[in-house]
Order: sequence, then C-alpha cells, then structure tokens
Amino acid sequence: MGNSFGKLFKITTFGESHGKALGAIVEGCPAGLVLDEEKIRLEMQRRKPGQSKITTQRKEEDEFEILSGVFDGKTTGTPIGIVIQNSDQKSKDYSHISDKFRPSHADYTYFEKYGIRDYRGGGRSSARETAARVAAGAIAKQFLGAKGISIQAFVSQVGDLILEKSYTELNLDLAEENIVRCPDPELAEQMISLIDTVRHDRDTIGGVVTCVIRNTPPGLGEPVFDRLHAELGKAMLSINAVKGFEYGSGFEGVKMRGSQHNDTFVNDAGQIHTLTNHSGGIQGGISNGEDIYFRVAFKPVATIMQDQESLNEAGETVTVSGKGRHDPCVVPRAVPIVEAMAALVIADYFLLSKSNKLNQI
Amino acid sequence: MGNSFGKLFKITTFGESHGKALGAIVEGCPAGLVLDEEKIRLEMQRRKPGQSKITTQRKEEDEFEILSGVFDGKTTGTPIGIVIQNSDQKSKDYSHISDKFRPSHADYTYFEKYGIRDYRGGGRSSARETAARVAAGAIAKQFLGAKGISIQAFVSQVGDLILEKSYTELNLDLAEENIVRCPDPELAEQMISLIDTVRHDRDTIGGVVTCVIRNTPPGLGEPVFDRLHAELGKAMLSINAVKGFEYGSGFEGVKMRGSQHNDTFVNDAGQIHTLTNHSGGIQGGISNGEDIYFRVAFKPVATIMQDQESLNEAGETVTVSGKGRHDPCVVPRAVPIVEAMAALVIADYFLLSKSNKLNQI
Amino acid sequence: MGNSFGKLFKITTFGESHGKALGAIVEGCPAGLVLDEEKIRLEMQRRKPGQSKITTQRKEEDEFEILSGVFDGKTTGTPIGIVIQNSDQKSKDYSHISDKFRPSHADYTYFEKYGIRDYRGGGRSSARETAARVAAGAIAKQFLGAKGISIQAFVSQVGDLILEKSYTELNLDLAEENIVRCPDPELAEQMISLIDTVRHDRDTIGGVVTCVIRNTPPGLGEPVFDRLHAELGKAMLSINAVKGFEYGSGFEGVKMRGSQHNDTFVNDAGQIHTLTNHSGGIQGGISNGEDIYFRVAFKPVATIMQDQESLNEAGETVTVSGKGRHDPCVVPRAVPIVEAMAALVIADYFLLSKSNKLNQI
Amino acid sequence: MGNSFGKLFKITTFGESHGKALGAIVEGCPAGLVLDEEKIRLEMQRRKPGQSKITTQRKEEDEFEILSGVFDGKTTGTPIGIVIQNSDQKSKDYSHISDKFRPSHADYTYFEKYGIRDYRGGGRSSARETAARVAAGAIAKQFLGAKGISIQAFVSQVGDLILEKSYTELNLDLAEENIVRCPDPELAEQMISLIDTVRHDRDTIGGVVTCVIRNTPPGLGEPVFDRLHAELGKAMLSINAVKGFEYGSGFEGVKMRGSQHNDTFVNDAGQIHTLTNHSGGIQGGISNGEDIYFRVAFKPVATIMQDQESLNEAGETVTVSGKGRHDPCVVPRAVPIVEAMAALVIADYFLLSKSNKLNQI
Repeated sequence: MGNSFGKLFKITTFGESHGKALGAIVEGCPAGLVLDEEKIRLEMQRRKPGQSKITTQRKEEDEFEILSGVFDGKTTGTPIGIVIQNSDQKSKDYSHISDKFRPSHADYTYFEKYGIRDYRGGGRSSARETAARVAAGAIAKQFLGAKGISIQAFVSQVGDLILEKSYTELNLDLAEENIVRCPDPELAEQMISLIDTVRHDRDTIGGVVTCVIRNTPPGLGEPVFDRLHAELGKAMLSINAVKGFEYGSGFEGVKMRGSQHNDTFVNDAGQIHTLTNHSGGIQGGISNGEDIYFRVAFKPVATIMQDQESLNEAGETVTVSGKGRHDPCVVPRAVPIVEAMAALVIADYFLLSKSNKLNQI
Repeated sequence: MGNSFGKLFKITTFGESHGKALGAIVEGCPAGLVLDEEKIRLEMQRRKPGQSKITTQRKEEDEFEILSGVFDGKTTGTPIGIVIQNSDQKSKDYSHISDKFRPSHADYTYFEKYGIRDYRGGGRSSARETAARVAAGAIAKQFLGAKGISIQAFVSQVGDLILEKSYTELNLDLAEENIVRCPDPELAEQMISLIDTVRHDRDTIGGVVTCVIRNTPPGLGEPVFDRLHAELGKAMLSINAVKGFEYGSGFEGVKMRGSQHNDTFVNDAGQIHTLTNHSGGIQGGISNGEDIYFRVAFKPVATIMQDQESLNEAGETVTVSGKGRHDPCVVPRAVPIVEAMAALVIADYFLLSKSNKLNQI
Repeated sequence: MGNSFGKLFKITTFGESHGKALGAIVEGCPAGLVLDEEKIRLEMQRRKPGQSKITTQRKEEDEFEILSGVFDGKTTGTPIGIVIQNSDQKSKDYSHISDKFRPSHADYTYFEKYGIRDYRGGGRSSARETAARVAAGAIAKQFLGAKGISIQAFVSQVGDLILEKSYTELNLDLAEENIVRCPDPELAEQMISLIDTVRHDRDTIGGVVTCVIRNTPPGLGEPVFDRLHAELGKAMLSINAVKGFEYGSGFEGVKMRGSQHNDTFVNDAGQIHTLTNHSGGIQGGISNGEDIYFRVAFKPVATIMQDQESLNEAGETVTVSGKGRHDPCVVPRAVPIVEAMAALVIADYFLLSKSNKLNQI
Repeated sequence: MGNSFGKLFKITTFGESHGKALGAIVEGCPAGLVLDEEKIRLEMQRRKPGQSKITTQRKEEDEFEILSGVFDGKTTGTPIGIVIQNSDQKSKDYSHISDKFRPSHADYTYFEKYGIRDYRGGGRSSARETAARVAAGAIAKQFLGAKGISIQAFVSQVGDLILEKSYTELNLDLAEENIVRCPDPELAEQMISLIDTVRHDRDTIGGVVTCVIRNTPPGLGEPVFDRLHAELGKAMLSINAVKGFEYGSGFEGVKMRGSQHNDTFVNDAGQIHTLTNHSGGIQGGISNGEDIYFRVAFKPVATIMQDQESLNEAGETVTVSGKGRHDPCVVPRAVPIVEAMAALVIADYFLLSKSNKLNQI
C-alpha cells in the first residue's frame, strides 16, 4: 500500500536507495503525446546530487531508461515503465549502523512496522525514491505543456531568510539562474551563504518551496474529499522532509476578515477573473482559472555530520556518527520534486474533469 | 469521484445542504464493536449550528438514523448506512441568488465544472456535508477507543489571538468548557469577545484548530505516497475553509537547525521514546508511538452579512447581499470535524497495519 | 471492503434484508442528465418479489427515494443517494434459525468471517441487496440511453430447457411479454410449466440469463487486468447465486478451430464490422463496436421448502425447515439485475474511455 | 487504468511484447518472507515458449531480475520491482503488418482506443505480458505456501477431448509429467496428438484449465461486489484468450434441483465440512474451508499459419499471412498463468481478512 499516486494519470514506484535499481510505472498518459526524453533528463539533473557546492557532493548519475509505453517517439496509452539504476549500491559498508536507529530518520519506524529493514542508507524512505517521481512528473509536465498549463517552483525561504515579495512581483525564471533556486538574486546570495555556513557547522537547515501553476482551466477538482488543494497537499506532504502545506492565503489568511479575504469576481472582456487571489486559484476545492499557488515547508534534514546519541535495536545507548556526504539544506533540490508532484496532480485532475458534463462527453 | 475517503475503514458521503437528506456509508468497521449511539449524538451536537452565541443561529437538529450494519447493538462488519434529514429544506426562497456567483464561494467553480448547480445554499460544497463525516468519525472514534487511542482537538488561534503554550502544558479537557473550545480559559474569553465583535461588524474571521492523537502504536503509515501525515493532511484539507496544514514542528521548524530539530531516542524502562517531539509522532511517514499533533488553518468564511459586488452567470455585475444566519468564525464548530477526520485516518491506517509482518498474520 | 463497484461511474451499497433500509450512493453520473424516476420504478418492478405465480409470493413494495444529486429534474454531478425502506423488517420471528447454518447459504461463512451475523433472513448476503443495484443501474441505463447504447437481457435456460436459437434470430422485446422473460413464447410456456412443477415439489431449479449490449462504441475496455469482459464477468459473478460467466463463443468456442473462430473484418460502406461475432463484441479486452453478448449461470437457490439436516454454531446436528415464501427459480427476476450490472460496467468504461487520446481531450 | 490488480497484495505490470522489457511491481507482500528465486524461475519455465513440441517454438529466455523489496533473502514489506528483458525485440521486420488488422486480435480495438499502436507483435495485448504475472504469482504462491495454502491447475479439455473425472479422483501431480499438463496420462496422449494434428493443419484449437485451491481458511471473500469467486473470475477473464469462467457446479449446476445441489454440513471430529462441494468452496462469496475449484475456457488463439482476408487502417481489403512460430493450443502454457492469478487473488483476500473481527486485531 502507498506506492501509487493518482487515479487516471497514475504513478507507482519501487526501489530502495541501495538496491539494484528504482523506478516507476506511469499509467494513463494519453496516447499520441510526443515525448522528449531530453526534457526528462533536464528535470533529473535539477534533482540530482552533486550539482552545486550547497548540495550533497555525492555523485549519482540518475540515468533513466524507458522500457515501454512509447513507440516511434510517441506515447501509446500503455504504461510507461522507467528504471533508474543505482550505480554504486554495493560499494559501502553499512554494518556500523545496521542495528542503530538514527535520530529523526525512519529507521525505528520501519523496524517497528516491518520487523526488518534495509539498513543501507534510508532504504525505501530515502529521498532517492523521488528520482522516480521526477522522471514521471517530467512526463506529466509534457502532457500539461501540450494543454498550455505551466508549473514553476522556487525557494522562498531558507532558515529565517524569507522572500517577502509576492511571486507576482518576481521574474520566476531567475530562480534557475542561481544554485539555491530563489528568484530574488540578492536574497539568493544570502541564502547560499547561510547554507554554506550551516554546512561548515556540519549541520542542516530547513526551507520553504513555493509553487505556481498557471493556465489551469476552471473546473479541476473533485468534491468533497478529493478537493484539488487536498490532493496537492497530500502530494507535497508525501515528499521526504515536508512538514507543512498551505495554499492561497494559508496560515496568514487566518488573521484576515472575510470582507478583506473574499476575492471579487470581475468581467475582464468576457472572461471571469478575480481582483485578488487569496483563494489561491481554488474555490470549494475546484480550480477557478486563476493562478494556483502554494507553499511547502521542509524541515532541516535529520542527517547531520555530528555524533548523536541514540539507541540500537536492543534498546542500548549508542553513538550515531555522521558520515558520508549529505545535503545541508534540501530545498534547492526539492524544487523539481515539488513541480513533479504538482504536475502529476494536475494531469490526473485534468483527465478526471473530462467526464463531468453530459453534453461534453 | 471524491466522495469516498479511506481504504479499509472507509466513508462515502452524499447530500446537499438543501436536498432531502445527506448521509454516509461507513465500511470496514470491524465486527463485534459495541456501538453507542449516544456518543455519536454527542459529537453531532458539538458540530451543530445554534449551539452558542458565537455560532450561526440557524437551528438544525441533525438527527441521524443508522439503517444497517448494526445488529443487537454491535457492528456486524457490513456497511453502516447513516441518513441525516434536512429538516427545512424547502422553506426558503433562493431565487435572488440563483444565477449569482457569491465571492469566494464554490458557486462559480461548480458551475464551470458541471454546467449546473444546486443554488440553494452551498449545495454539495456546503459545510453541512461535514455532519455525515462527524457521524462516521464518531464510529471510528469508538473503534479507536476500544484500542486505547484517543483524539482531542481544540481552538489554538482566532484572528491574531494565538495560543502560545504547547498542548503539553495545558489541560485539554478545559477546551470543551467554553464555547470557543480553547483550553486556555483566559484566552478563550478574548477569542469569544473578538468573534462577537466580528459578528457585530457583520464580518467573519479565521482561526486554527490543533489536534492531538495519543496512544497510537508505532508502525502506522504507508510509505511512500500514503505517509501517515500526508493522509492526515489530505483529510484536513478536505474540510471546508481549510487553507493549511502542518504537523510537528511545521512551518516554524524550517528555521531550526537539524541538530536542534532531531528527536533523541531514549529507553524509558524498556520502552522507546523520544526526548523531544518535533517529529510530531511521525517519522518517515510512520507513527513512532509519540503523540501525533498537527495544526489546521481555517480562513474567514466567505459568507458575510454585507453587500458585495459580484457577477452573475451572464457575466453581468450584480450585488450579492448577505442574508440568513451564518458563522462569524467556524473554528469552534470545526473542532469535532477535525477530530472526526483524524479518527477516520487513524482507524484506516490501524487496519492497514495488520498485514505488514508475515509472522503476525 | 467490497461494497463499491466502478471507478468513475461508481456505486456503493449498504443494507441488510431485515434492517431498516438499504440503499446506494451513485457517483460519477455526468451532470445535466434528465432523470426519469418512473423509469427507475419500472426497473424496480421487474425485480420485485410477488410479480407472478413463478416468483416468491412475498410482497415487497421496493419504494425508493432519491435524497440528493438531482436538482430541477437533472443530475448535478454530485452523488445520488438512494434509500429503499424495508417495510416489514420487524414482523417475523427468526429465533428458530438464529444459530443454525442453512445449507449452501452464507450463514456459516459470514459467521466464520465476522464472528457475528444478522440471522434474520440472509442479512447482507440476501438478494434483497440487489434492489439497490437495480435502482442504480436504472440511472446508468438512462445515461447510456442518452448515448444511444441499449442493454437487453432475457432467460435462455431453465433447468435443461435450453433456448438453442441465437439472440440474433429472436425478437428480444417478446421476453418482457411472459412471466419467465424468455423471448421464445413456446419455450417460455415450457419453462413456466417446469418452474411450476419445481415449486410444487417444494424445490428450486437453476437457469441462465443471456444479455446483449448494442451500439457500444469501439474502444471501451482497459488493458490488461480491467478488460471489458473481465469487468462484466466480475459484475455478473457478484450477483447472488451466479456460478458462471461466458461471453461470445464461451465454453463452446473451446471446441472450435482458430480458422473457424476468427471473425473476419469487413468494410460495410465505410464502417468496419465483422462477418461473424465469436468475439462477442470484445477483442483484446476492448469493445470493437459489434454486439456484446454474454451468458450468466444461476444455480438452483439454496432455500427450499423442505426439511434439511445441518449444524448449528455449536456443531450439533439440527433440522432446518423450509419456511416462508421463496423463489423456485431466480432467473426471471434476475434479468433486470443482469441488465443493471451491465449498465453500470458500460457507463463506467464509457467515461474511462474519454481520456485515451491526446487530441480528443 | 487497468494495469494493477489487487488491493493489499497488489501487482502493477508494464511492457509490450517487443519493447525493451516488461515487468511488475508487487506490493503488499508481508515482510519477513524468505523468498526463493529458484521457485520463481521454475514457474517462469512452465510458462515460457519453446518448452515442448506442442507449444510455440519461439525461444524466449524470460530471465527476470528482482530490483528491490528483498534484503538478505527476505521480503522487506516494500515493493518488489521485477524486470524481464525482451531479448530480441529489434530483430524482426513488422512493416508487412504495420497497418493491417489481424482478425480476432486486438489490433483494431487498440487502434480505435488509442489512435496509435505498437504493431510489433501484439504490443501490450500480447500474452507475453503474462510473464510478469507468473513472476508475481510465484511470490504470492510462496507467501501462501507459508500459510499452508496450495494451488494446482491442469488441463481438463482440449477441443472436444474432455476430462470427465472429477479432480478428486485424480493424482494432480501427474499433470506436470506430460507436456499437455493433463493429470490423466491416457487422455493426455490423445490431447497431445490432437494438438499435433492441429499444428500440422496450421490451425489452433481451444481448451479448458481447471484449478484447485486447497487449505484456504474459511472467511476469505468480501461481500457484496468483491465476492471471492467474482474476483477469481475477473482474474481469470483478464488472461489472454479466456472466454469463460465457472466455479463449483458451474453451468452444469443450472440443471440441478436445489435439494440435490445443497451441500450438507457435517461435523467431522469438531471440524465443520460439507458432504458434497457443489459450492466450490465458496458460499455467499466467502470461502467455507472446502476446496475451491473452477474452470477457465480458452478460445483457439487467433494467430494461425494461414492466409486470411482482413482490412487495413484505410479500410482496404488486405491479406494477412500467418508467419512466425505460434502456439497451436495455449492451455498447456496457461496452466501456470491460471495458478499465478489464483495465487494473487487468494493472497490479497487473505490479507483483507485480517481486519474483520474486533477481537482479533
């Protein structure tokens, strides 16, 4: 249970960080989509380790292979099987942590749940699993692109450095021009510097990713339990290290009065819009055609390069030493993951919306 | 699509605010549970309108009837059908809003999605739908109670009045002793006063509900997409007016260092615990046995007792007048809804966890 | 688990034979369908007990009430709640069978599964549950009717009286003109006479229902596990007393050579057809536009008006006496149930087919 | 849609016959199962082409690789990724059939559904897809074996050669000792001879596979839509070339009287059994502990080594020539596929049954 996401446009993933390979099956991508593998590769590179001085220095090539579902460069409607090899899965010795529970990792909970765990790296709970999501999301993005829908995420907070400007005042394309993926170049420099400091301290720090979805047609979203923002929220909360999700006015909106918060409808040359967008593009769980935007909180990741006290399976006190090369802050690499999960949700709900009205089917 | 929630312990709801009735089918409740209808009734009363001066003055009796699945006072394992009549669904005239889109309601999005809408009240998007959830949740609660698990929610913010104390420093039972459902009696008074002011201003205001789940066994949660907090998040985000969800350290945790944020494991007389609980009782998406806690942000509801400019279906500018009796702040009545949805998630994941280990099945 | 059927056009049912009521929630019916309640009523009457001398003489009115999802005579896209009261659920004394396992009923298996059972009548396993299916199927039929698709079932065997003619040689409308629902009037007379004999013997006998679906567009069906005939098969096998399902050439086709069995494609004035239809309108699990037809085997029902030896919960030998009024042969009343389940499958797969091709969504 | 099967013990497959590879993700196998890869290999060999003179002479090695979900020889509870390479997918020229619809294949229906098809071999509709099912089923079998449940299938009919004896009178182990997999050695010889004749005629012929499941505990099965036999039926009908399914007394039972058909309960030294087993081990959709048995009808496969008239995509009359090496009768190789699908169903329903009773969870 729990390895699939989506109803019509659906992904199922497998794979541990240190097994032979990981991968995904993508179902429901409509037939006839010209699939550009290079675009998938680019998304994978945005996620991969070792891309800059503020990410882990681990080298993972993340080469993927599409095994099915594409013929003569087009999707056929059948499931797209993707495999990503784990290049160096046998190279390390994990015996020193094999029976230890690393603090705030999933070691203890997997052990309690399954009675057994793949102690090499994080096993199934490793963020490496998200490589499969990014590959699948890159396919969803191409489908959405064919329908004119675009998705852009960026870093809006690292530690207490907060991007105060609204996304509407920023050129989001600038985000990809710096290694922290913040569209405000000045703040980006500060963020990079902060992460660098944290890294020198052999510590980690949290951050926030903001995501904007443009050009979604009105009518996406399934009342009542599968509201569009509820599914987006679940998608984001399913990403490693995520602790919170808010859309539109979010937690800050709590402080507003209804008379301020309500978004007035206006007729803009025959097209219905809203003057403000506290709704975040979603009303009653259904898209209204305005920009959808939301924020995702990532905790400081648990792997730190310091000695920590903990327990082993026998309940004895042990020391867990920080080894290896890990991310001091995950948000720069989380940006493409957030986009991928958003793309999967929107693609799925786009297809779901095709059977709503009798006179359109 | 979207009217069901859960995999093994599952709820499916139906009903509009102004149709004949609404209801739910509850599947998967294990057989042999002594079901106390009075406890369901009490939960319904916590949610129902007209219960205090700070809620809507509408009178709805919310009488429910169990139609199946219970025999000789015990659940039989078959689906429990519940119907809640809409007592006065025909009494009003809605023609004045029949073609108008109320700002920040679901009128426009339902119209775009379905091409038709039940314009009496909010139709399916009305918060009245949550009555069915509360009834179903009250059954889930009784099941969880039989397993020693308890759930308590309370109001922790109204507007900018914020309960700063941790839930661990408070007697949560006090929440039910005041009409705003805040466990800090002094702050509760201020909150009540603020809501009263807002009501006199014919306006609305937002709030936050915090929920604590105690005694969950370790091992609940399904990697990777169905992490326990992801499902809790979706459950909460599916409630009307919710704009955000965070668990454990949440958005504030972003500012912490990993070395502060990590929860140290300790052996407490043979039982594994953590010294701190920034994880919010969930690590790697799976419960670790500590308290699970999370916060849910509610916007100021859209229905205000003021004239607002808007559009009708023809795209013409119209005035929407605030009529009727509505909640100036929904969080006091949202407390039992949050608990109900939390109970449904935990009950479902409890059952899902029963097939994890070969030697325990 | 197991109370829902369908993915987009979906039904969830609840209710025991002797509880207060049973019912269904129908999800996914496209918005804007003019719903004729009278047509639902007519289907219910085809299924209801007491309709002729060869069915059970029990009187059940099967009055249904639609509680939601319909506004101004049209479907709104929201779930349609249906309730059917059990008029006389309290009138009888069941204590004489409360701990006895009736042979070839579900008494023993429900007891083993749940440890408790509603011993009044068959509880959830009673064929009365199919009343909810017929109501839901009548809605699906109206949706399909709006798309030009029709479904007709009829009795093609009772005991060893077999309708040898192909359905293509018969006027299927004649089936509704006799009480056994066989479109061959002469054979119908013999069947009625046979059932009458069986009834006088206080016994029961089996039968076969054949169903024909016309005008299905090509392209319905989901490879590989959800082939159209696999879902039709499951739908039929989920009906009480069904023991077998075959479509197209079925079990007899086993004896043929491939060269005989293959259906040759022909171009009929621009439209692709097949000369023969051993495929039963489905190739590779997907409809090809020809008539879909299949046969459903019903066993002689277990309730006979005779004394039978059996066991009670304590494992002691007891006598089970046949009481009440039961069907000597279920197939006449099964005809509308078969049609209802077929309609639910085709409606669901019709909606599923709307997201197959990029250039059509 | 349609590439997954199962709820808790679940399989998702991908892959075309002539793509790079095919495979499966197996979810929900309980953790701690010692997995014997050799047993998987043996099942694959029972299915693979070229194993005898009466199967296709194509050589496919069907080497599988397990990519995840197993650690130190045991299942970990995480998804098991399996890949099976298509060794010679590029070696052939399919241009001669690229726009032709082979009679009674899925060429036309896939083209109608998706507007595009992988014309090399059968694409996704190829029986090669079942290799992934057999690998997954071999895992399910090992899980069931650990619980004492066994599954055995065999050929009971080829053309009009019918095994008349009940399976209870036969030593089913003999089935694997001849190439047609019929447990009656004499009849097996006749069947082999018949298939050989058919092969020489460049034709094909149908057959029936019977399957017996022993030692299933009572209580498996989910009322009402997911009855155990309904799911078994769907599983079987999802296999290529299957046209019918019957369990217990099946279509023949139609002719019986209820008084003959009912299975009398007897107390056999404290254990409840039935004297006869017309129910096929399933009553009310739930297993009763007796042997579960059913029959599956396979049509003569469509690929014949003869010229056939057909149409191309333009609707023009063309000749389709039989080339390559194909099975004259699929049932010998279908035996392990039937067992695999049966194992997947029983494993899934076994897990589902673990949350039925309050006092056992």
